[in-house]
Amino acid sequence: MARLVLKFGGTSVANIERIRNVAQRVKRVVEEGNQVAVVVSAMSGVTNQLVAWVNEVSKFYDEKEYDSVVATGEQVTSGLTALTLQELGVKARSWQGWQIPLRTDATYSKARIEGIDTTEMIAAMEKGVVAVVAGFQGISADNRITTLGRGGSDTSAVALAAALQADRCDIFTDVDGVYTCDPRIVTKARKLDQIAYEEMLEMASLGAKVLQTRSVELAMNHRVKVQVLTSFEDKPGTMVVDEEEIVEKQIVSGIAYSRDEAKVTLTKVSDRPGVAAAIFGPLADSAINVDMIVQNISDDGKTTDMTFTVGRTDLDRAVKLLNEKKSALGFSEIKPDSSVVKVSVIGVGMRSHAGVALTMFRTLSEKGINIEVISTSEIKISVLIDEQYLELALRALHTAYGLDAH
Amino acid sequence: MARLVLKFGGTSVANIERIRNVAQRVKRVVEEGNQVAVVVSAMSGVTNQLVAWVNEVSKFYDEKEYDSVVATGEQVTSGLTALTLQELGVKARSWQGWQIPLRTDATYSKARIEGIDTTEMIAAMEKGVVAVVAGFQGISADNRITTLGRGGSDTSAVALAAALQADRCDIFTDVDGVYTCDPRIVTKARKLDQIAYEEMLEMASLGAKVLQTRSVELAMNHRVKVQVLTSFEDKPGTMVVDEEEIVEKQIVSGIAYSRDEAKVTLTKVSDRPGVAAAIFGPLADSAINVDMIVQNISDDGKTTDMTFTVGRTDLDRAVKLLNEKKSALGFSEIKPDSSVVKVSVIGVGMRSHAGVALTMFRTLSEKGINIEVISTSEIKISVLIDEQYLELALRALHTAYGLDAH
Repeated sequence: MARLVLKFGGTSVANIERIRNVAQRVKRVVEEGNQVAVVVSAMSGVTNQLVAWVNEVSKFYDEKEYDSVVATGEQVTSGLTALTLQELGVKARSWQGWQIPLRTDATYSKARIEGIDTTEMIAAMEKGVVAVVAGFQGISADNRITTLGRGGSDTSAVALAAALQADRCDIFTDVDGVYTCDPRIVTKARKLDQIAYEEMLEMASLGAKVLQTRSVELAMNHRVKVQVLTSFEDKPGTMVVDEEEIVEKQIVSGIAYSRDEAKVTLTKVSDRPGVAAAIFGPLADSAINVDMIVQNISDDGKTTDMTFTVGRTDLDRAVKLLNEKKSALGFSEIKPDSSVVKVSVIGVGMRSHAGVALTMFRTLSEKGINIEVISTSEIKISVLIDEQYLELALRALHTAYGLDAH
Repeated sequence: MARLVLKFGGTSVANIERIRNVAQRVKRVVEEGNQVAVVVSAMSGVTNQLVAWVNEVSKFYDEKEYDSVVATGEQVTSGLTALTLQELGVKARSWQGWQIPLRTDATYSKARIEGIDTTEMIAAMEKGVVAVVAGFQGISADNRITTLGRGGSDTSAVALAAALQADRCDIFTDVDGVYTCDPRIVTKARKLDQIAYEEMLEMASLGAKVLQTRSVELAMNHRVKVQVLTSFEDKPGTMVVDEEEIVEKQIVSGIAYSRDEAKVTLTKVSDRPGVAAAIFGPLADSAINVDMIVQNISDDGKTTDMTFTVGRTDLDRAVKLLNEKKSALGFSEIKPDSSVVKVSVIGVGMRSHAGVALTMFRTLSEKGINIEVISTSEIKISVLIDEQYLELALRALHTAYGLDAH
């Protein structure tokens, strides 16, 4: 007997028929003798309708009311899922965030979980009742509904698994696992049987949209075993586990990419101490996140070029802000470029293997792809390239690192 | 300055444009210097969709889960209404039943209100914040969502008005008030400026669908002044008030009808003590409500015919049940008839005026309409007639009692 948390995303509960499939799957897991908590998202499309209504009313909305409106999507699914389970003869009841309670801070619309009281749920689960939890939502100290941000149901599920000391957290989605690369681009991409938390974290934050980044952080911090798998077929997915548990270690586990990047170059910035702070301070104050930064070697000892990346949606705002400070910063020209992509090679094996970066640079060079910016961490190397080379780069790197399926 | 509760039904909040109209109306009431609580129903169509989903899952559903699912309709409207008010520069926030809390018993899907904690709402209203309350819903002692039955938002509004000691409760709907008779049938029907609680109660329970019966009971018990009016025009509606406050008293205030009736006749029932209990006991045990009863005079001193009415939807069940007990009850034949309607003449003036019933019987007789069953109370006379005469009877009675508009 194990205690399991099963999380089903929007496409898995898109209509009553799919909810019935979900319930049948849950029933099988219960009949195998497990204690089960189920976390559900809104039926796909429902959240979009709710958000559209809020936007129709107001552009600058009160996030407390926004949260109360959009949280209803998960409330509906949780009730319908509990009813469907009952119809199949499985004992079940729904819990909303405020009923558990799943307490969060007061950062409405992207709240962080502070604590989960599992007393009631555990008592029910020990009596064989499936606890069906509305994902994505919690309650603030002010007794108001909060939501955890897009994809927050993953976070709900992992946090619950941690609080319930569950043996595993299964995230059911519309893909059957984590792949070495996006299979829509790289047809030879392989599904991974296992991936380390650190790798998954990099994959998620570098563009692979399988799991919400925060849910992976949470899983890593609490050592929650997470499985990503499909709800449409009955086969194992990818286990996200401790590095030590991985049997067959790869140097590179996967290649991620992101189209959400934009590049900004400031030319002839005066090369003096404090100039970086002068540039990046105002951006940070305006909540514009700067990712990669490269400062060229000074030609004349007086000025230099500064290149960095921001989120593509922040580009216009960043340019406007820097232009307003042009005289104070003393640069010559500002060159925005949103036709770039970030490609990242990820693997815990890099820690103990040299030459991984060299393979990347050589492979891209052989294909005539220019690297515009580089950034590295202990387990990943990211490069910024012209977006027209994205597919070519991904396929070449996938082959170069020996990731191709046979 | 007054404290007011304004309740808006499903058609008044059917889409964002209508919610904007509602918000503008609320804004005017606020700007007149009033403290305002708003009670909203689900956007029309939304509850039906939610109920349809539940029915698709299961015919015999867990009402706790049903309540949790259907209560989301009002949650959405309350949030959207608060946001729309804010957009118009009016301070507002939403309250769900569990947040107030509005406590009910545990009769899920048709719960009764037990108490309302108005502390938070009054504090907000006194600071000029409009309290937007999700109607139709409450919370049980088990910390689970309850709903108050179809039309329950009227009850929420009146109960809140009582708890808040509001000066008035305005029920905005798609008709502009209470009429002397259904204007779709009797074109000469007049809108009433005032109606007594007792009359409104009879009107509601005898078929006029303007207000939920329970909300009228509640208004009467707590002496809450209720106004029924339209949200689509700016004009006074019908005030439901104490009998003593009515200026121009009528003998008959209105004529109601119900198509929800069915008649059952048992022939040659043995005419002995205890036979009525033997018949109606099992029906009551099966939650089949019996309304009108008439027992014919015994022809032979040994047997009699017994006629009574039940709800039309209960007819098949009632017939089946009685047939099962046929030998015990000892009747000869059972004659069901669902082609009957109940027509009721209502007025507090009846208490002090004789001849009201005579006018009814004579009018129907002149039109050749046979009365099948009669029942009376202090302020109403109901008759059961063949449904083909419904329109004829209503128009003739409306004229006979001098109710026609000039």
